Amino acid sequence: MPPVAPRSGDAIFANVERVNAELFTLTYGAIVRQLLTDLEEVEEVNKQLDQMGYNIGIRLIDEFLAKSNVSRCNDFRETTDVIAKVGFKMFLGVTASVTNWDADGTCCSIVLEDNPLVDFVELPDNCQGLYYCNILSGVIRGALDMVSMKTEVTWLRDVLRGDDVFELQVKLLKHVPEEYPYKDDE
Amino acid sequence: MPPVAPRSGDAIFANVERVNAELFTLTYGAIVRQLLTDLEEVEEVNKQLDQMGYNIGIRLIDEFLAKSNVSRCNDFRETTDVIAKVGFKMFLGVTASVTNWDADGTCCSIVLEDNPLVDFVELPDNCQGLYYCNILSGVIRGALDMVSMKTEVTWLRDVLRGDDVFELQVKLLKHVPEEYPYKDDE
Repeated sequence: MPPVAPRSGDAIFANVERVNAELFTLTYGAIVRQLLTDLEEVEEVNKQLDQMGYNIGIRLIDEFLAKSNVSRCNDFRETTDVIAKVGFKMFLGVTASVTNWDADGTCCSIVLEDNPLVDFVELPDNCQGLYYCNILSGVIRGALDMVSMKTEVTWLRDVLRGDDVFELQVKLLKHVPEEYPYKDDE
Repeated sequence: MPPVAPRSGDAIFANVERVNAELFTLTYGAIVRQLLTDLEEVEEVNKQLDQMGYNIGIRLIDEFLAKSNVSRCNDFRETTDVIAKVGFKMFLGVTASVTNWDADGTCCSIVLEDNPLVDFVELPDNCQGLYYCNILSGVIRGALDMVSMKTEVTWLRDVLRGDDVFELQVKLLKHVPEEYPYKDDE
């Protein structure tokens, strides 16, 4: 039997259950505002958003693998390509591209031109240190963790800070070999 | 020229920008968990979720009016009907029904059988007082506020508390006549 072909991000996105993007945008905005009120320090808000994203990523990877028919990726290069072209499309409805690879293939950038999280958002002056979309870096880090890739994910460019695109640097720190037998989930 | 007919919730939902429902569900779960950690008291979390929903509702109403072609509703009865049949479909992709009207037409229930916010959610024992979906009651209250209807919105049934459906009681407290000229937004 031939292997099942991976499905395109567009095809998956057309078939999964969805909610209104503006509701999502406003709900995300409400989280950020809430965290700014509760935590006061912008740096703490960045950390919390990243942690929330991480917790989402370690669960979202299941949906991703179940719906995308993506089989095991051979290396980090292939993995980031799948995140950019299938993952972003499947979850946010936007396409991203991968660029700026380093020589040994362990560090690259994911570039997003469009991002529904920031529709109608402007950062007030006292929030200039905020990485508003930090939940996204956490999601990527969490999802990659679950496929045994420890990474560091950092914003290099951010439209809310005046850049022309969003650029997330993804650096592979360690590729942890999978251990058998798998540990049971709690 | 004939008036533009209101569009059905299905038709609107098919055409608005959307994001993956599971991403929304997990993001909402991350908010609730964050609030439980930061605020500790379940009662406080209920209040915050309601307030966040209110802030979303006062903005979401614009999208609703712009996309739905719904013109001015004649009364509270018509308004709740539009919320249930067009609003819920347009934003969450689910349909709700309106029932349990009181004699003078100022109090009714919106009943939801399905609700993407609670997919995979189970309340732990120490959260039994939590109204997990309290953001929804806030959204309805906020949206109605912007069309001059002061309401009180209360959960009567909740699937997470063992009921068979979600039931939100919407009580009209005051119908504030609109004042001209409109105040500018800040």
